[in-house]
Amino acid sequence: MRKDERPDGLPLTDEELGALDAHWRAANYLSAGQIYLMDNPLLKKPLEPVHVKPRLLGHWGTSPGLNLVHTHLNRIIKRHGIDALCVWGPGHGGPAVLANSWLEGSYSEVYPDVSRDEDGMARLFRQFSFPGGVPSHVAPETPGSIHEGGELGYSLSHAYGAALDNPDLLVACVIGDGEAETGPLAASWHSDKFLDPVHDGAVLPIVHLNGYKIANPTVLARMPETELDELLRGYGHDPLHVTGDDPHQVHQAMAAAMDTALDHIRHIQQQARNGAPAGRPRWPVIVLRTPKGWTGPAEVDGVPVEGTWRSHQVPLAQVRDNDDHRAQLEAWLHSYRPEELFDETGRPSPQVLECVPEGERRLGATRHANGGLLLRDLPLPPLERFAVPVDRPGATRHEPTGVLGLLLESVMASTGERRDFRLVGPDETASNRLQSVYEASGKAWQDPVLDTDEHLDRHGRVMEILSEHTCQGWLEGYLLTGRHGLFSCYEAFVHIVDSMVNQHIKWLKTSRALHWRAPIASLNYLLTSHVWRQDHNGFSHQDPGFVDHVLNKSPEVVRVYLPPDANTLLSVADHALRSRDHVNVIVAGKQPCFDWLSLEEARAHCARGAGVWEWAGSENGTREPEVVLACAGDVPTQETLAAAGLLRRHLPQLAVRVVNVVDMTRLMPHEEHPHGMTDLEYDALFTRDKPVIFAYHGYPWLVHRLAYRRAGHPNLHVRGYKEMGTTTTPFDMVVRNDLDRYRLVMDVIDRVPGLAVRAVGVRQAMADARVRHHAWIREHGTDMPEVTDWTWSNDRHPA
Amino acid sequence: MRKDERPDGLPLTDEELGALDAHWRAANYLSAGQIYLMDNPLLKKPLEPVHVKPRLLGHWGTSPGLNLVHTHLNRIIKRHGIDALCVWGPGHGGPAVLANSWLEGSYSEVYPDVSRDEDGMARLFRQFSFPGGVPSHVAPETPGSIHEGGELGYSLSHAYGAALDNPDLLVACVIGDGEAETGPLAASWHSDKFLDPVHDGAVLPIVHLNGYKIANPTVLARMPETELDELLRGYGHDPLHVTGDDPHQVHQAMAAAMDTALDHIRHIQQQARNGAPAGRPRWPVIVLRTPKGWTGPAEVDGVPVEGTWRSHQVPLAQVRDNDDHRAQLEAWLHSYRPEELFDETGRPSPQVLECVPEGERRLGATRHANGGLLLRDLPLPPLERFAVPVDRPGATRHEPTGVLGLLLESVMASTGERRDFRLVGPDETASNRLQSVYEASGKAWQDPVLDTDEHLDRHGRVMEILSEHTCQGWLEGYLLTGRHGLFSCYEAFVHIVDSMVNQHIKWLKTSRALHWRAPIASLNYLLTSHVWRQDHNGFSHQDPGFVDHVLNKSPEVVRVYLPPDANTLLSVADHALRSRDHVNVIVAGKQPCFDWLSLEEARAHCARGAGVWEWAGSENGTREPEVVLACAGDVPTQETLAAAGLLRRHLPQLAVRVVNVVDMTRLMPHEEHPHGMTDLEYDALFTRDKPVIFAYHGYPWLVHRLAYRRAGHPNLHVRGYKEMGTTTTPFDMVVRNDLDRYRLVMDVIDRVPGLAVRAVGVRQAMADARVRHHAWIREHGTDMPEVTDWTWSNDRHPA
Repeated sequence: MRKDERPDGLPLTDEELGALDAHWRAANYLSAGQIYLMDNPLLKKPLEPVHVKPRLLGHWGTSPGLNLVHTHLNRIIKRHGIDALCVWGPGHGGPAVLANSWLEGSYSEVYPDVSRDEDGMARLFRQFSFPGGVPSHVAPETPGSIHEGGELGYSLSHAYGAALDNPDLLVACVIGDGEAETGPLAASWHSDKFLDPVHDGAVLPIVHLNGYKIANPTVLARMPETELDELLRGYGHDPLHVTGDDPHQVHQAMAAAMDTALDHIRHIQQQARNGAPAGRPRWPVIVLRTPKGWTGPAEVDGVPVEGTWRSHQVPLAQVRDNDDHRAQLEAWLHSYRPEELFDETGRPSPQVLECVPEGERRLGATRHANGGLLLRDLPLPPLERFAVPVDRPGATRHEPTGVLGLLLESVMASTGERRDFRLVGPDETASNRLQSVYEASGKAWQDPVLDTDEHLDRHGRVMEILSEHTCQGWLEGYLLTGRHGLFSCYEAFVHIVDSMVNQHIKWLKTSRALHWRAPIASLNYLLTSHVWRQDHNGFSHQDPGFVDHVLNKSPEVVRVYLPPDANTLLSVADHALRSRDHVNVIVAGKQPCFDWLSLEEARAHCARGAGVWEWAGSENGTREPEVVLACAGDVPTQETLAAAGLLRRHLPQLAVRVVNVVDMTRLMPHEEHPHGMTDLEYDALFTRDKPVIFAYHGYPWLVHRLAYRRAGHPNLHVRGYKEMGTTTTPFDMVVRNDLDRYRLVMDVIDRVPGLAVRAVGVRQAMADARVRHHAWIREHGTDMPEVTDWTWSNDRHPA
Repeated sequence: MRKDERPDGLPLTDEELGALDAHWRAANYLSAGQIYLMDNPLLKKPLEPVHVKPRLLGHWGTSPGLNLVHTHLNRIIKRHGIDALCVWGPGHGGPAVLANSWLEGSYSEVYPDVSRDEDGMARLFRQFSFPGGVPSHVAPETPGSIHEGGELGYSLSHAYGAALDNPDLLVACVIGDGEAETGPLAASWHSDKFLDPVHDGAVLPIVHLNGYKIANPTVLARMPETELDELLRGYGHDPLHVTGDDPHQVHQAMAAAMDTALDHIRHIQQQARNGAPAGRPRWPVIVLRTPKGWTGPAEVDGVPVEGTWRSHQVPLAQVRDNDDHRAQLEAWLHSYRPEELFDETGRPSPQVLECVPEGERRLGATRHANGGLLLRDLPLPPLERFAVPVDRPGATRHEPTGVLGLLLESVMASTGERRDFRLVGPDETASNRLQSVYEASGKAWQDPVLDTDEHLDRHGRVMEILSEHTCQGWLEGYLLTGRHGLFSCYEAFVHIVDSMVNQHIKWLKTSRALHWRAPIASLNYLLTSHVWRQDHNGFSHQDPGFVDHVLNKSPEVVRVYLPPDANTLLSVADHALRSRDHVNVIVAGKQPCFDWLSLEEARAHCARGAGVWEWAGSENGTREPEVVLACAGDVPTQETLAAAGLLRRHLPQLAVRVVNVVDMTRLMPHEEHPHGMTDLEYDALFTRDKPVIFAYHGYPWLVHRLAYRRAGHPNLHVRGYKEMGTTTTPFDMVVRNDLDRYRLVMDVIDRVPGLAVRAVGVRQAMADARVRHHAWIREHGTDMPEVTDWTWSNDRHPA
C-alpha cells in the first residue's frame, strides 16, 4: 500500500487507483443522474423520455473536477487520519457535493428518505432542482457545507475563517477559475499573512482551472503557466500542478500532490509548534487543470462540448425530444459502468466506498460544517464593570465605542484559552476607539514586525486588513464553524459587503428551517465613524443606507439597533453577543456623547426597544402630549433633547413627549417582524393623532416604510440624512440635513395646531440661530459655542 | 540636458535635479500649509496661534509621495511631449493634488479667486477642509481628477477605463499600499489582459509603498521584495523599483524609472501598431518605496512620526496650544525654504515652474479629466429598425433584452471608427441575450485564443471579466473621460457594486453644481436575469434590492425604469443612452415576454412614465373605476394583465383600471424628484379613494416609501418580492410571493367594498387554482399549462 511499493514511483497501487477511480465514476454518474433523470436511476431499463426530467437544470461543467477533489480528499483524510472540511467555491456544482454526500452515507443520515439504495437514488435524482426539492447549488441544505457557491468570491475567505483557531483542521478550498477573477477572492489570497501556524489550522487552496466561465475563457487558465506560478508565489504559496485529461494519470498526480501538500503542511505546523523562529511559511497550493465537463459528451450536434464553455450547464439539452441526444446521454451514463459501481439494490459497491472515511471524518458529516454543534456560550462579564455612572441624564459624556472596547477586552481576555472569539475590521479598530482589546489580544500578523509597529502578534485574535470583503468572509467562516465575533466598520463603507450580507442572511434564513442545523452565533456589526461624524472626511464617507439594505431582508434574521449612549450600547452589544442566527447591525458613535441612561435604565429601555423618556419631556404624567419628539441614533437623540430643552424654555406650556427608539424593527407591524409593536403599543407610544417629529439617524423615508400602516402615520414627520454632505463641522452636518435642534423646534411650531401664531417669535429666534451658525462657521471653521458647550438640563419649567 | 551628459550615468543634471526638487518642496510646503495655516501663508511673520486653523484636518502621510509623483509626471509629460492623466488612488491626499494644481496655474483658471499669489495661497490654505471650502479628499472640485480617493479600491480600474480607446494617452495611477489590500483593486490588476496596445492608451501603475495604513503595516510593503516582484510579474507587469529617503537619490531613481517605463510603453505600442504578431505585452509598473510622512517631523513628543503610521493624518496635533508643536511646525515649514520657492508676491519661482507643462498638457488642465468637454452624442439609430410589430397587445412574445441587443449592435457598429462606446459585463452578455453585439464587435481579449473560443478579439469593445467591481470601474473611468457605455448584470449580483455606485452618484451630484465640469454620459445599468426568472438558480440569485439602494441617493442623479416589454425597453434604453449625468437603472427580462405596446405607444407611455392601459381595463371611459390594478416590471405586468382578464371573465360588471408604471420615480412627490408627479397627476391616475392593488417587481414596501404622502395611500396594497425564494418554477416564484394572478384577483375581491360576498365563488376558484398549481409542480416539475399557455385576450366583456 505504500508509495514505495510501486517500482515506477507513482503513489497509488493499481488497487488503490481502481478504488479511487470507481468512487470518482460513481460520483460522476450520480452528478449527471441528478441533472437528467427522474426515474430509472440505475439504467436497468433502456432510457425512455419519461425517465428524463422535463426541465434540465444544473451545472455539469465543474462537477467532474469537484468529484475528483472529493475523492482524493477522502483518500488523504483516511490515509493521514485527519479532520478536514472542504469549501466548494464552485458551489453551483451542487450535484457533485450531493453525490459525494450520498455515496458516503452522510446524506441519508440527515435525510433518511433519500436512502442509500435504488429508491433513495431515484429521490436524490428527482429532487435536484425540482420544485419542493433541493437547490441546484451547494446550500444550507447540503450536508458538509458552510458555503453557498451561487454568488462567487467568498470561498477562500470562508476557508480561512474556518481554519482560524482550529489547529487540527485541514480546510481544503476549491477555487474555480471563474471565481478567481472576482475582487473578494483576489483580495483573500493575502489571508496567509494572518494565519497562525501554531493556533490555526491549515488552508489548502485547490485552484481548479477548467478553462472557461459561462461563455469566456478564464484569466487564470489562459495566462502562461510560468506567470500563474509567479502570481501564486507572489501570494505566498508554493504551487503543485496536476494537469491532464487521462483519469488514471490524473489520479496518480493528484494523489502525489495531495500527499506532498499534506507533508508540507504538517512540516510547517510541527516547526511552528515546536517553537521554531517565527516567519511566515510558504503554504502549498494545488493547481488542478482538467477539462470542463470532463468525461461528458465530447461533441454534441457537431460542435465540441467537453473541454469548452458549452459544458458549463447542461451539455445535452434536448434529451426528451431528440432521440440522438437521449442515446448520447444513455451512452454517457453507461460509460461510468454503473453496474460495477452499485449493487442490485443501488448500494455503492465496497470498492467505491473503500476511500470513504468513517463517521465524522466524512466531509458531509463533520461537525465543523454544522458549527452550532460546537458552539459554546461566550463568557460575558457583568456589564456593571464597564457601565458609566449616570446620576442624572446628560451631565457627563463618554465615547460609547470606547466603553464597548472595555467589554470586548474582557471577552477577548476570557476567551484567551478557548480561542473562540475574534474581532475583525478594515484597519479601524483603534480609529473606532476599540483599542482596549489590545490589552487582551494583539493583531494577527505573520510578516516581520518593526520597532515602530504596535500590538502586532503572531497569535493575535484581532484581525485587520484593508478589505471589508475579507473581514466579512473571515468572520462568516469563523461563525459558521461554531465560534463568535464582531465586525467593526466605518458606516459608509460597510456597503462594500452588501452582497455578502445578503447571502449570509439567506443562509441563516434557510438554516433556521433545517432541523439538523444547530443555531450559530449571530453576525454582529458595529457601525461607527458614522454619517454625522464624518464631517471631516466629507461626502464620500457619509452613507447611512446599510440599515435600509438589511431591513429589506428576512425579518426572522435581521435586527437593527441604534443605542443613543454608552450604557445602551453595552446592553445592546451584550444582547447581540448572546444571540443566535441573527444579523445584528449596531450603529453607535465613537465621539464623546452624552450619557442619558444608567445601566439599569439602559437595560430596561433596550429590553423595550423603544420608550418614552419622561424626564426629557413635559407631558407631566397626566397631561396628554401635544407633540411627540421621537429619535433614533446618538446624534438625533442629542438634537432632539436639545430641541426639547429649547421648547421647555421658550414654550413652557407645550406638552412634549420624548420617545427614543433603540430597536428599529419595533416600528414594524408585529405581523411583519417578531420585534414589531402591535398597533396598541405603537399608539400608546406615539399617539394616534398628535404630530410626531421623528429625528432619525439615516434616510428619513425608512421610518415611513416601517410605520406606514400605523394610524398615526399621516402625522409622522421624519428628519434624517438626505445626502446633503460635505466636509464641514459636526453641527453643520445636522443643519444641512435639517436635523438640527432649531429646525426640530420649527417643525414642532409648524405642526402643532394653533402654535404657529402663538410662537412666531420663537420660530424666528430658531431661524436666526441657524443664520448665526452659518456666519460663525464660515468665520471660525468650528461650531459656535452655544452648540458645543450646550449641556442638557432637566430643570422643569414652572408648571 | 541629456542623460549621457552626466558622467555618472544618472538621468538628471544638477540643474534639472534642482528644479524638480524645488517643485517638490513647493508642493510639500503647500500641502502642509493647507493642513495647518489659515493666515501668514508665506511665513513672512513668526508663526502665531492665530495663523493656525482651530481644527486640524487632512492626510499628510501620503502627500509627499503624491507630490513626488506629480513632479516627475510633469517632467516626463514635458520631456516626452505626451498627453497624460493621473488617477490618484490615495485621494485622501487631497492637499497634494490641490497644491500641484495651484502651482501649475490650472487651479486659479477654474477658481480665479484662488489666485497664484500670496492672497490666493492664503485662500488655498484656509479653504481646505474648512466649512464652505473644499473637501479634504481629491473630489470633483479638484481640477484634473476623475477619481475620489475617499473610498479605496477603484483607482486602477478607473485608470484602465480612462485609457481604453485613448491610444495617445498615458494614464498614470498611484496605488497606495492600503488600497492595494482591497478586493476591487486586487481584481483590477488583471485588466492588462483586456488592454489593446493598438487602440488603447497605456496605464502606468505606480505602487506607492509608504508602509502603513491608519494604524497597521501594509501587506504589500511588508512582504519580501522578491515575493512582491513575483506578485507583480504574476499580474503581467515588469516592476521598476524606486526606493529611498534621500530626496536627491530618489529624484534620480524616479526619473530613471519613469524614462524606462515610458520607453518600454512606447516600444510596446509601436510594435503592436506596426502589426507585430499579437501577444499580450508585459507592461511596466513602478514600485515607489518612500517613508510615510516623508520630510515631515521625524519625532513628536519623543515618539517617531516620519516613516510610521503616526504621520497618517496630522503629525503635529496641538499646534495652537502647544508652543513646542508650533515651533516644530514652523521649523518644518521653513525646511522647504519657501523664500526660494515663491517670490515676494507669493508666485512660484521660475525654477519651481520649470518642470510644469503648458496648457492642456498640465495634469490639472487635461480635458480627459473633464470628459464632458470631449463627449460626442452617440449615433443612435431610429428605433423603428428594431421595434417588434404589435398589432394588438399580448398576441406575440419576444425576449426584450434580445431586441435591445439589436439596438446595441447598431450603436456598436456605428461607433466602430469613433470607438467611444463600450459594453461591460461579468461574463453574461450572451446569457443576458445581448449576443447580437458580437456582430459589430468581439470581446476584448489579449491572451491566446483557441479554436473553441468565440467572439474574442484583441480590438473588441465588449468587455467581460467575472468581476462586477472591475466592470463598474472600467465603465466609470470610460464615462468620466467622455465616452459612452452600458453595464449589463444579473440583478441580484449588482449589489456587489452598491458602494461603487454610491460614490459615482456622489461624484455626479457634486459635479453638476460645478460650472466648469461639462456633463458626461450617464452610467447605464441593464439589470436582467432578474429575481422572477432565477427560479432555476435559486435563492442566492434572487434579490431586487438595487433599486431601493439607488433610490435612497440624490434625486437629481438617479433614474429607475422597469419597461414591461421589448418596445418599452427600446424606448427607455434610447432615452438613457442620450441622457447626461444620471445613473439609469433599467430592469428588464431576457425571457420571452408578451409584447404589449407598439413602438409608438411605447414611446408615448415611456414619455409619461406611468399611464392607464385603457385597453386592459374595464372602466370603459366614462365609468369611474372601482379598483386600480397597478403594475411595474415585466412579470408583475403579465400577472396583472392575467388578473384583469380573470376579473373580466368572472366579474364582468367590475370597473377595473390598469395602470402601468415604467419610471418608478414618477411615484415620488414632485418636490422630491424632478420626475415626481404632482398630487393632481397622481390622483388622476390612481384615484384618491379606490383600492389600488399594485404588483411591483421588487420589495413591496418601496412603493409605500415612494407614495406615502399621496391621498390615496391608505388604499394602496402592494405585492412584490418578500424573500420567499428557492429553486422552483417561474410561476411558483410569483405564487410563493403572493404576486400571482390568482392572488391579485383575491386581493381585489378582499378590498373592493361589498365584493367579498358577491364574489365568494370566484375567490374560491382562485384559491383552488393555487392549490392545483402546488400539486402540479410537485408532480411534473414544470408549471401547469393554464399559466404557461395562457395568452392575453382583450375581448371585451358584454357591456
